[in-house]
Amino acid sequence: MTSRSESELAFLSIEQAARLLRRKEISPVDLVETSLARIERWNPGLHSFLTVLSDRARRRARTAEKELKRGRARSPLHGIPISLKDNFWTRGIRTTAGSRILADFVPRTDSDVAAMLARAGAILIGKTNMHEFAYGITGENPHYGSSRNPWAPERVSGGSSGGSAVAVATGMGFASVGTDTGGSIRVPSALCGIVGLKPTFGLVSVAGTIPLAASFDHAGPIARSVADACLMLEAIEGKYPKGETRPDHRKLSQSRPRRFRLGWPKHFYFERLDGEVQRLVEAAAKTLESAGARFKEVPLPRLAGAIDAATSAIVAEASHFHESQGYYPARAAEYGDDVRGHLAYGHQLRAVDYLRGVEFRREVVEDFEAAFEYVDAIVAPVSPIPAPRIGETEVRIAGQGETGVRAELLRLTRPANVSGNPAISIPCGFTAEGLPVGLQLIGPRWGEARLLAIAHAYEEATAWHNRHPELH
Amino acid sequence: MTSRSESELAFLSIEQAARLLRRKEISPVDLVETSLARIERWNPGLHSFLTVLSDRARRRARTAEKELKRGRARSPLHGIPISLKDNFWTRGIRTTAGSRILADFVPRTDSDVAAMLARAGAILIGKTNMHEFAYGITGENPHYGSSRNPWAPERVSGGSSGGSAVAVATGMGFASVGTDTGGSIRVPSALCGIVGLKPTFGLVSVAGTIPLAASFDHAGPIARSVADACLMLEAIEGKYPKGETRPDHRKLSQSRPRRFRLGWPKHFYFERLDGEVQRLVEAAAKTLESAGARFKEVPLPRLAGAIDAATSAIVAEASHFHESQGYYPARAAEYGDDVRGHLAYGHQLRAVDYLRGVEFRREVVEDFEAAFEYVDAIVAPVSPIPAPRIGETEVRIAGQGETGVRAELLRLTRPANVSGNPAISIPCGFTAEGLPVGLQLIGPRWGEARLLAIAHAYEEATAWHNRHPELH
Repeated sequence: MTSRSESELAFLSIEQAARLLRRKEISPVDLVETSLARIERWNPGLHSFLTVLSDRARRRARTAEKELKRGRARSPLHGIPISLKDNFWTRGIRTTAGSRILADFVPRTDSDVAAMLARAGAILIGKTNMHEFAYGITGENPHYGSSRNPWAPERVSGGSSGGSAVAVATGMGFASVGTDTGGSIRVPSALCGIVGLKPTFGLVSVAGTIPLAASFDHAGPIARSVADACLMLEAIEGKYPKGETRPDHRKLSQSRPRRFRLGWPKHFYFERLDGEVQRLVEAAAKTLESAGARFKEVPLPRLAGAIDAATSAIVAEASHFHESQGYYPARAAEYGDDVRGHLAYGHQLRAVDYLRGVEFRREVVEDFEAAFEYVDAIVAPVSPIPAPRIGETEVRIAGQGETGVRAELLRLTRPANVSGNPAISIPCGFTAEGLPVGLQLIGPRWGEARLLAIAHAYEEATAWHNRHPELH
Repeated sequence: MTSRSESELAFLSIEQAARLLRRKEISPVDLVETSLARIERWNPGLHSFLTVLSDRARRRARTAEKELKRGRARSPLHGIPISLKDNFWTRGIRTTAGSRILADFVPRTDSDVAAMLARAGAILIGKTNMHEFAYGITGENPHYGSSRNPWAPERVSGGSSGGSAVAVATGMGFASVGTDTGGSIRVPSALCGIVGLKPTFGLVSVAGTIPLAASFDHAGPIARSVADACLMLEAIEGKYPKGETRPDHRKLSQSRPRRFRLGWPKHFYFERLDGEVQRLVEAAAKTLESAGARFKEVPLPRLAGAIDAATSAIVAEASHFHESQGYYPARAAEYGDDVRGHLAYGHQLRAVDYLRGVEFRREVVEDFEAAFEYVDAIVAPVSPIPAPRIGETEVRIAGQGETGVRAELLRLTRPANVSGNPAISIPCGFTAEGLPVGLQLIGPRWGEARLLAIAHAYEEATAWHNRHPELH
């Protein structure tokens, strides 16, 4: 039916694919077969999928083909193959959360996100690998094998939504949905060179996801371009407060802001960065200036201290969930060492420490709110380092003493989880070794439309998102 | 200026007093002098006030007299002497929270409630005694002397707003405002034979009060009649959600419901009651039936278990506040034994226990919401026992084994703190020994208008609120 090459098809934007589907130049069957062929080739080395839904996806593709032939496109996602992180409940489909404890768990209902995507006509090709119970930022997994970075397979994908980021970066599906409690959408997106959006807290429903820490959990899209991420968001978002603009992927180019104010953080974000990361983010700032940005220094004075305190709230909520389900400590032996360690730490944490964390949270919110009085978005790196090697636990940054890999990877993304602000990761270049680096833009609450417009303006001025990894 | 006797003046309803003030038949000076005279006589034995503002109140009375002479009544409270529990910040006036730690604390600003009452023209005659830091239900106080029950001075007033209840019951002022985290408005109101309203969580601002447990703290009026409580509420309430009716004391008689549905709880509330309390509450139900009520059994199946769990959340929040202020453990020696013990318990409580409490809280909310689908209010006792003796720690109820006085006094009021529902205590009779007993009516959230109308209908059918204690 189509004369396009597999990789041409695999890396179409969703809008392009939708247009070709509408014109019947391609069929959903072509897209699903392309995705499945790539999964067959790439997945054994990268451990991106925990469950591949070949037959189901083929059946859905044939149904979608018929519906589209009758001219009944339900949405731009109709007939588009996508994946879901394996902590979204999917009816009749195993949902492991990357754990041994839930290795055989088959939900009887869909998560809200799975149901919304099905209604939009998207075709689920599989459930993606993840850090066990989303409780880790590297994507390493002792039960199913670690998801690997497609740009350098001896390196981590980032996590916890690692399998989703790898799948999207390699054309095993067009987009995915991940969850982000401390950086789990943005970090793997940055380390794999794609786009990840953590929306405003509460905008995308987490009903029917296996939680990490309920008051910090966000669900959001992982995609290859800002427009694709926007389009995915439109399919899964809930309501905005009155007076807020809903994002619209069709208007991203027209609504490109001519002038916008960006905040350059005076504290926290630019401390202790890998030299190449710093250089690339500074270059991105220059590009943004050419695209119309005026920069202003913004103080976020209480961020550093408050983030550490707020982390105890995440840890406590995670232990609470695992205890309420009877997983921990009852089945402690079935966890990976790292997750078991975190749960044990949260288990003995005191209530007064939790409550201090909740209180400090307000300080983070206030610092951001004060900054957004003056700027449209804040610019920062996503991660202070490019993807570390699998198994690496310590890292030396910019010639300083060793610090923990996990803490460093989480350091710059956590603030937006604590505050609930939307934040996007977009590719901003590659290190000399060829590892992708991500730029983080953080916006005011419910300001997704403008945040995506600014990210899109940057993306249009660069070509990083057009580079794709090659099979090693 | 007036020929009325002191006790005639002291026990006027606020509406009557306001009418006489408007007609200039009495002056605010008369009312303040009456209150001060009674304080002079009653307070030494009852320990109701920690601070009496004689001079300030007299000055304010003269100013109010002038304003009223010019026909400029700011509200029905203009010129009416009232008191405030000593955990409401009052600018330039010592605010001890019944503690030694804050014995010399003089706030620089008013609490919201103090400011609103001042704007309404009410005259503050003093700050009332309370259980230390509001952390107790008996009103016993090792630092300032325990407030005593005016019906039987060897018995507790109930707490923590004990001084307020005693002041109002004895005509030392016309009304007061207390706080209620587990029953601290309703219990002393019941034990002293007056009316106490804990409004919907959030309706009355607690800004500028010294908190006990922030997510359970309520402020509300203590008064001698439902109409007086309503009038006080109107002066201090914030906004109701759209579509909800605001209470109006002038319409209480007209808006008397002809028919209303009351819930008789199947579980929890009528377990383990003092025989006289049970008899009086059952008699109150009969009176309510004659006044138009139809009763229906309501199940509140998860209340008992959830309340205990939720209590750990109160305890943790209290310890968090005292630690964040540097009071505990740094100044542990300055607390009374009971409060120090509670703080120590909360200090070591685990975060996962706190979070389980928060989760159980939802169950209590759900149980109440389910009940209010069918009924306008739920009928219950306020306390399972009449006022215990000062110093008594164990009690034997209905021939059963001994239980703790503190736990019993809190048992039936705590649910509405956990759920945030409005609840009112109204007098429903006296034991053979002459101790008052309180009837509790619990309403749906933001349903203050209808709850007060039902309480008023009951009050009109009885005369309990017209009995006043006599000086022993």
